[in-house]
Amino acid sequence: MTTFKLSIELIEQIKQLIESKSEKALLELLKDVHYADVAEIVDELELDEATYLIKLLDSDKTSDILTELDDDVRERILKNLSAEEIAGELLELDTDDAADIVAELPEERVQEVISNIEDKEHAKDIVELLRYDENSAGGLMAKELVSVNENWNVLTCVKEMRIQAENVTRVHSIYVVDDDEKLKGRLSLKDLLTTSTKTQISEVYIPKVDYVTVHDKAEDVAKVMSKYDLEAIPVIDETGRLVGRITIDDIVDVIKEEAEKDYQLAAGITQEVEADDNIWELTKARLPWLVLGLLGGLASVFILEDFEELMKNENVKRLFFFTPLIAAMAGNVGVQSSAIIVQGLANDIVKGSLWNRLLKEVSLSLINGLALAGLVVVFGYIMNYQISFSLTIAVALMCVIIVAALVGTFVPIILDKRGIDPAIATGPFITTSNDIFGIFLFFYIAKLILQF
Amino acid sequence: MTTFKLSIELIEQIKQLIESKSEKALLELLKDVHYADVAEIVDELELDEATYLIKLLDSDKTSDILTELDDDVRERILKNLSAEEIAGELLELDTDDAADIVAELPEERVQEVISNIEDKEHAKDIVELLRYDENSAGGLMAKELVSVNENWNVLTCVKEMRIQAENVTRVHSIYVVDDDEKLKGRLSLKDLLTTSTKTQISEVYIPKVDYVTVHDKAEDVAKVMSKYDLEAIPVIDETGRLVGRITIDDIVDVIKEEAEKDYQLAAGITQEVEADDNIWELTKARLPWLVLGLLGGLASVFILEDFEELMKNENVKRLFFFTPLIAAMAGNVGVQSSAIIVQGLANDIVKGSLWNRLLKEVSLSLINGLALAGLVVVFGYIMNYQISFSLTIAVALMCVIIVAALVGTFVPIILDKRGIDPAIATGPFITTSNDIFGIFLFFYIAKLILQF
Repeated sequence: MTTFKLSIELIEQIKQLIESKSEKALLELLKDVHYADVAEIVDELELDEATYLIKLLDSDKTSDILTELDDDVRERILKNLSAEEIAGELLELDTDDAADIVAELPEERVQEVISNIEDKEHAKDIVELLRYDENSAGGLMAKELVSVNENWNVLTCVKEMRIQAENVTRVHSIYVVDDDEKLKGRLSLKDLLTTSTKTQISEVYIPKVDYVTVHDKAEDVAKVMSKYDLEAIPVIDETGRLVGRITIDDIVDVIKEEAEKDYQLAAGITQEVEADDNIWELTKARLPWLVLGLLGGLASVFILEDFEELMKNENVKRLFFFTPLIAAMAGNVGVQSSAIIVQGLANDIVKGSLWNRLLKEVSLSLINGLALAGLVVVFGYIMNYQISFSLTIAVALMCVIIVAALVGTFVPIILDKRGIDPAIATGPFITTSNDIFGIFLFFYIAKLILQF
Repeated sequence: MTTFKLSIELIEQIKQLIESKSEKALLELLKDVHYADVAEIVDELELDEATYLIKLLDSDKTSDILTELDDDVRERILKNLSAEEIAGELLELDTDDAADIVAELPEERVQEVISNIEDKEHAKDIVELLRYDENSAGGLMAKELVSVNENWNVLTCVKEMRIQAENVTRVHSIYVVDDDEKLKGRLSLKDLLTTSTKTQISEVYIPKVDYVTVHDKAEDVAKVMSKYDLEAIPVIDETGRLVGRITIDDIVDVIKEEAEKDYQLAAGITQEVEADDNIWELTKARLPWLVLGLLGGLASVFILEDFEELMKNENVKRLFFFTPLIAAMAGNVGVQSSAIIVQGLANDIVKGSLWNRLLKEVSLSLINGLALAGLVVVFGYIMNYQISFSLTIAVALMCVIIVAALVGTFVPIILDKRGIDPAIATGPFITTSNDIFGIFLFFYIAKLILQF
């Protein structure tokens, strides 16, 4: 594979070249390195080294490098650049990438940077994109696209396309609009090349075209594009006007971020953090869920105090040794159930009635519960527990597993029906509530059976 | 958004039309429905209804439908089709999709189906693709691509390209090879159109081209393509010959599957299952991790039996009420740490020395630990616990949190260094081991401080 591998030696070499201001050697060394790889190098440099390098390299390369940097590295480098320098970088970028960078600038700098962009059309496009939420189709789209008017003939169309295509890195489709800029359809390059130059576009275009509107959610756009294997999709505004285009590379990022967010939520991490973020960021992301877990644990203390008298009975006090086991099983079963449901909801594959789902979860947990209860009885036999004691634990365990599975299944479904992201109901939320339910249920049932 | 919405009414309507064998009405109804949407409909039908529909529709549409069906639905439909019928479908598909379907056929049918494919070249390509592991570049690639010989002139090249392009749905790049089919570079369409027809390709091609080799892992291919924003990448064999091409839509699927797999592992589910799989599949995926959790719980029973004497002391027996809290905190902290490290390893952003990482985790858990220990002391005050008892719990809790964070951080790192997928060290594995460590540590420290 043609992979670039970042090495400590390379970083050291570059740091030395920067130190000795060997401009020519640096330019030579980085000439054939892809901008995504240069970004990885820059992420490793000290701020003044990074700024030096960015100022040294050509702005058509540095603009791309900027888009690939770690957010906090980019923020610090932008602080070191003048409004003119930033405007120069933005000029080189597609409008969607440029708008993403502008959105990160401190408010007081935005105006200054924008007014320094030489190409006023480009500046206007960037300002327009800033209006949209970053998690919407409008926030993802670029203004760069190739569109033709249905009233043109093929000849005019080809001429216009040549001009427009200059600004578009990759032409995926040619979109057809009417005089009001409303999206009418798309054009196949093949038809365009095999039709007489005098034919009107309205006679040859394909009226069937997938599209999204500016306020559609990014994750819905990702779903449509990956379901229909689209490499680009046009974006229209509320009035049907063609206003932009989203390409598949942006969707790849959305899919990855979505997956990482769900994964982190399931692990009890509230906001997007990375291993290399600072301790304060990591604490902010982790502490809230830990506090929730602690409160759950303290609730269990309350519950257990209620069953304190069981400790006085020599045969029964052993129940307390099983609390970690019960809590673990309740938590694990709940997490499994919720993970499957959350993924099913995300992929729209949770079908059938709630009643069927209930039946399925109960049967499933009965099977799992029986197997695990069997193991507990075997364990009790080996440990020489009274058979009534072992059976009590087995029965209580089964009840806990069934309830945990039901909670894990239905909490996400209910949240989803109310329009709340069901992913928050995985991980700590489910383990904590299942710990409490599980422990209460276990002791309550044990007490019932052992007749205290 | 132009989304198709599957409704119970539509399914009912289609079932009735199938029942009454209203071929014309069915064809009319499904004429403009995208194949990915028809696949969703077929997934909902009974087997004989589905087979009827597949046989009714045109094979250029049904072949695409087949690729989008649920695995088990497809398997059952293929059983109902003759070798000739399957071969007819495969003829319509790109080689990569065709090979995926052949790979799912029972061994004894493969030969028969392949020999029924009319286009022998297509059949040969499919057989070649079957050789590769499905999680490798070879398993992902299609044979369809446009390649030209460096010794041709522009005119020959354009003629040949026209012929090849017929078989290729989307031309992303034109690859240049030498007489031995070795990949030399790529060609820009623009250069091709603006150069004299007599120019040799070797004079105009771009020698710099990203590529992967057949045995590269699918997830590494995904990393390269998404890092460099590539929409297609050529695949070479061990000798450097150009043998195929991977497109971004296949990579989107790889990224999604990879994310789902990691998510399920973290939730304690061993193999890819969906909410709508049958109970047996779900049990197979879930029970092993639950058994692991149970064994961990039984280990805790052993440990707690060792501290049984603490129960006899009125002031100290309350320690047992805190076991669920300790287990929960140890588990949650461990899962958080491991999730961050596993994601960092996946994105290659875990840098710096192990020593620095150790320092960071310890400081991080000290901060979290102090905050949580503070809450416990406040709780003890409200509950009128002896201050020494509250402090004991606070100190023990802090130790547990630090150890849990270290286990969560370093187990994945060690696994990764040994070439084992670190994702298995998230979820049940970490919670179970941290439960055991945590409970032992808590009681051991409490006993030390309270001097029994």
